[in-house]
Amino acid sequence: MVDLLALGKKAKLAARRLALSSTQQKNDFLHLLAKNLEIQQERIIAANGLDISAAHAVGLSEAMIDRLLLTPERLAAIARDLSRVADLVDPIGEIFDNVSLANGLKVYKQRVPVGVLAVIYESRPNVTVDISALAVKSGNVVILRGGSETIHSNGELVKVIQTTLEMVKLPSDAVLFINEPDRQHVLGLLKMHETIDLVIPRGGASLHRFCKENSLIPVIVGGIGICHLFVDESADLEKALKIIHNAKTQRPSVCNALDTVLVHTRISHAFIPTLVDWLKKDGVSFRMDGPALQIYGENVNPSVTLAGEKDFDTEWLSLVLGVKVVDTIDEAIEHIAEHSTGHSDGILTNQLDAAEKFTALVDSAAVYVNASTRFTDGGQLGLGAEVAISTQRLHARGPMGLRELTTYKWVIHGQGHIRP
Amino acid sequence: MVDLLALGKKAKLAARRLALSSTQQKNDFLHLLAKNLEIQQERIIAANGLDISAAHAVGLSEAMIDRLLLTPERLAAIARDLSRVADLVDPIGEIFDNVSLANGLKVYKQRVPVGVLAVIYESRPNVTVDISALAVKSGNVVILRGGSETIHSNGELVKVIQTTLEMVKLPSDAVLFINEPDRQHVLGLLKMHETIDLVIPRGGASLHRFCKENSLIPVIVGGIGICHLFVDESADLEKALKIIHNAKTQRPSVCNALDTVLVHTRISHAFIPTLVDWLKKDGVSFRMDGPALQIYGENVNPSVTLAGEKDFDTEWLSLVLGVKVVDTIDEAIEHIAEHSTGHSDGILTNQLDAAEKFTALVDSAAVYVNASTRFTDGGQLGLGAEVAISTQRLHARGPMGLRELTTYKWVIHGQGHIRP
Repeated sequence: MVDLLALGKKAKLAARRLALSSTQQKNDFLHLLAKNLEIQQERIIAANGLDISAAHAVGLSEAMIDRLLLTPERLAAIARDLSRVADLVDPIGEIFDNVSLANGLKVYKQRVPVGVLAVIYESRPNVTVDISALAVKSGNVVILRGGSETIHSNGELVKVIQTTLEMVKLPSDAVLFINEPDRQHVLGLLKMHETIDLVIPRGGASLHRFCKENSLIPVIVGGIGICHLFVDESADLEKALKIIHNAKTQRPSVCNALDTVLVHTRISHAFIPTLVDWLKKDGVSFRMDGPALQIYGENVNPSVTLAGEKDFDTEWLSLVLGVKVVDTIDEAIEHIAEHSTGHSDGILTNQLDAAEKFTALVDSAAVYVNASTRFTDGGQLGLGAEVAISTQRLHARGPMGLRELTTYKWVIHGQGHIRP
Repeated sequence: MVDLLALGKKAKLAARRLALSSTQQKNDFLHLLAKNLEIQQERIIAANGLDISAAHAVGLSEAMIDRLLLTPERLAAIARDLSRVADLVDPIGEIFDNVSLANGLKVYKQRVPVGVLAVIYESRPNVTVDISALAVKSGNVVILRGGSETIHSNGELVKVIQTTLEMVKLPSDAVLFINEPDRQHVLGLLKMHETIDLVIPRGGASLHRFCKENSLIPVIVGGIGICHLFVDESADLEKALKIIHNAKTQRPSVCNALDTVLVHTRISHAFIPTLVDWLKKDGVSFRMDGPALQIYGENVNPSVTLAGEKDFDTEWLSLVLGVKVVDTIDEAIEHIAEHSTGHSDGILTNQLDAAEKFTALVDSAAVYVNASTRFTDGGQLGLGAEVAISTQRLHARGPMGLRELTTYKWVIHGQGHIRP
């Protein structure tokens, strides 16, 4: 059994050292890790082979097995990402909200790491390297708990990471790994509020719920997106088709993919049949509310059916699209308030007042005007990388990059100041 | 029984309306509430009389009863604080991190309220008005759960608050009150993650622990301060005495009051006897480690005793002061890392390198150089007001004012942008 308490103590000690490491040291680590992944390529791929064999033995789908697979090309891509993280600005040490008070006290805030992160994830072994890179660059120690199906790959990757940490004189305990698939360890981690500062689950809704319900530690809840686009009566319909096509079909299995289109009634007759024609070529099927189905015509196309009761509360993660006719922008906003998970929602319009109303009243992590919801991504929105997409309201919302893995302390300089 | 689910729904609806209210409306509310508290003074004081009688009947101490008491003067002071909150800058709507990406997407963040707060507090009825004012000004709905010992006063105050909300056309459900002392309601609130966004306990360590252990909702943990001052060998000893005197005696019952003094061994013989002489006049008693006690002399003074095992892990909240001799600044930093609650810790020194080392290595919410720990307070540090002092690392650290009751959304404007 892994001794979680001992692990937590190691993490806490390493966190104090890592918080004080220089940007140069952290970047050296990232560049050297890229090299070491190449040097150790054979060992890593051999370990990955054990996971792949095990996956075949238990009959995992080819799609799942492909997600686990490491190849020299994939390792090279992971190494390239490391250089990109090295290029990002180090957020640690930044001084902000600098003020000199009337009594002469000098007050500022200084950005510091959150401390110790626990990341609980599934499947893809690239996450092991990605998260380690972002954690170390932001000065955070990370305890990794990957899926049992990649335990050999992860074990080997973590060895390379820890060796590299030592080589640049960073604490090797800055990246810790739970190398046993026992599920009890997840529960154990969630109770370690003395040593862990933040839990980041990366996985499905049930993992997020489990963490939220059992954790004594703050959890970043996120990654679940029931996303909407509202096609306003003034929308450029050609652009609207392209945006919806992109948001639904470019990568349907991810959280920022589109789930429901709301169509203003004034353009619904012109728009809905064209929309179906455009998207069905790419295999999209449709769940329509009564009015939308009436416009398209029932039984015309087997991939167009009446939406069931829960269809507008479903994150499809596949080529299914809900379609609903609304009479007004207010009805669209109301529908979003009721059914959105607060991830990414947008309006397609040419009217400034409609855009303004929508962005004021829709309170999701990312609110769009005339753009695809697929941009809700740390890389796309200029953060350079992302550790998670938060759909909770505290600490950080939407894509979380390096800065979102930090907190601050107040530093107050006096000259013998006492409180009157 | 209070129907908590219905209460939560009301809160959620009110939150959507309140988030869009203007600064003018919110300030009108604050000014009018100040007037209405004066107009309704008799009713409020009569209700308070019921709480005071009940307190006498159950034999509460005079000190406790004084905390519950409302007088015309105290109501006037509460009203003055309302005008001060009206003067603070409204954080809602602020646009920041504005960027134009290479692909032409315009991206910014906009500050929005957290949503629905639940505040669980004890004793003093002024908290009811303070918190309502800060919540409304920051656009947040608040569900108040005060102590049973002030239930009549709070009920009357909330009536005035709700009437005032209506008068300025803000939703009266913006401030909701649980008017039954049943403890089960606290547990119920902690589970309402569908409608409550943030829980703020204001009370002792056991209330904080209870919230953390039972909440499905993010909790602001704070208000517990084991605070240290390290007197470096280079400190100006006269200033050091004044700062320690202020930090320990000005208001010993609060979280930013001093608990432990660490004294550099090189000045310990000069400093410790003077320190005791200075502070004992104000009734301070001392718990010393072996070396400090040896310097002062055992059995010289009954108020100076050997520190027990847990004394350096105790938040005194009274006129007790721990004293320990350290050989180096590193030993001081190490002691703080082990015993501080991460609230407020400081160094008294004249050496720049010592000050820099201390502020770099001590990671508390507030780190001081040559000033009293008593400044860790929203009013003192320029926030104008405070809703809590956070000792957790996420979202906000240290004093939380209006801005710390907000979050943000990303707003992204395109011109038909799709993700490549």
